[in-house]
Amino acid sequence: MGKGCFITLEGGEGSGKTTQIGLLAAYLQNKGIDVMTTKEPGGTEVGQELRKILCTGNKDKMDAVAEALLYYADRRIHLQSKVLPALERGTWVISDRFADSTVAYQYYGYDKRLPKEMLDQLYAITVGHFRPDLTIILDIDPAKGVARSLKRNGSAAVQETRFESRELAFHENLRRGFREIAQSSPHYVLLNADQSVESLHREIVKMTEERLMRK
Amino acid sequence: MGKGCFITLEGGEGSGKTTQIGLLAAYLQNKGIDVMTTKEPGGTEVGQELRKILCTGNKDKMDAVAEALLYYADRRIHLQSKVLPALERGTWVISDRFADSTVAYQYYGYDKRLPKEMLDQLYAITVGHFRPDLTIILDIDPAKGVARSLKRNGSAAVQETRFESRELAFHENLRRGFREIAQSSPHYVLLNADQSVESLHREIVKMTEERLMRK
Repeated sequence: MGKGCFITLEGGEGSGKTTQIGLLAAYLQNKGIDVMTTKEPGGTEVGQELRKILCTGNKDKMDAVAEALLYYADRRIHLQSKVLPALERGTWVISDRFADSTVAYQYYGYDKRLPKEMLDQLYAITVGHFRPDLTIILDIDPAKGVARSLKRNGSAAVQETRFESRELAFHENLRRGFREIAQSSPHYVLLNADQSVESLHREIVKMTEERLMRK
Repeated sequence: MGKGCFITLEGGEGSGKTTQIGLLAAYLQNKGIDVMTTKEPGGTEVGQELRKILCTGNKDKMDAVAEALLYYADRRIHLQSKVLPALERGTWVISDRFADSTVAYQYYGYDKRLPKEMLDQLYAITVGHFRPDLTIILDIDPAKGVARSLKRNGSAAVQETRFESRELAFHENLRRGFREIAQSSPHYVLLNADQSVESLHREIVKMTEERLMRK
């Protein structure tokens, strides 16, 4: 049995990643592929505690550097205990966010106040040379996305609004960041998330087949 | 009013740091110096949550790299929100542990399994060029120190035994590490912690006066 593929979905708040991951996982399973879906932050037990620290409470309780360190701690634990073992046994892994979110939020979101090299160093320390096989970035107007996300949060038990509560400029920086990231390597695909769930799913399937299933 | 001095106390489990910090703070206050005592991990509200993740539970729940990232996240928040503002207003700060503990535990303790440069990079990312004015390392036979620490933990509400539970070899590496660190820069002082509380306090006062109070 070969090594599984690692697919990550990225995008701003309310871009529809979670829904699309469920649909993509079901599609791949139908093709006979063993699939695990997961997320960052919070894909492990320790990660759940880190997610609570990162995503709830006052937006000023820590700065971008502290956030980046916590996201990378979560990422390290997630990779070591869950993602890498699954890939090793041939399971495909689809993750709701990965390292590109840290670049988009902690670098672009905060208007490049910390040096990009800092995040490259954290990546090298924590992840090494490992990279996703395919990263799908869902692009949406932040005014629409944040409204969607806050609506969903309104009915949730825990209010994960630490980032949603930031001003629109932050989310616009974020979108520009994800668009720049999408240009930086051929393993990225940028898709318009402002379309029906079904048609976006069809685009994601098409890209996944083209990039990972035709050999 | 000038900038305050930053003093850190380092050492293995049960070396008596907490007791000595209380005595040193009282001594300095008697001299008319404004003093704040604090600790890592857990010197802030977010830090308390990180301390719980780091110091309780199964010793294998994360590796040395994840630990180092969490300790540095705690350190960043601690410095930004508490230590640097206090020093700025002229208060002296005495911290129970700082960056040397990360080198001792995550590098030497785990038998140098991660590259030392990784920790140097994390220091540069998180702390920059800032350094303690004086670091007092308390040296004790780990067999004595760990027993002392476990005894104290036995009566505590929360069992912070994630590191105490490691085998003696880990703690012996740790001690060797602290001794090596003590040789690496003139701002370190290595003191024998296997003596009475009173005589150790006198040595700490002597060193503090020699290094920081005679101008």
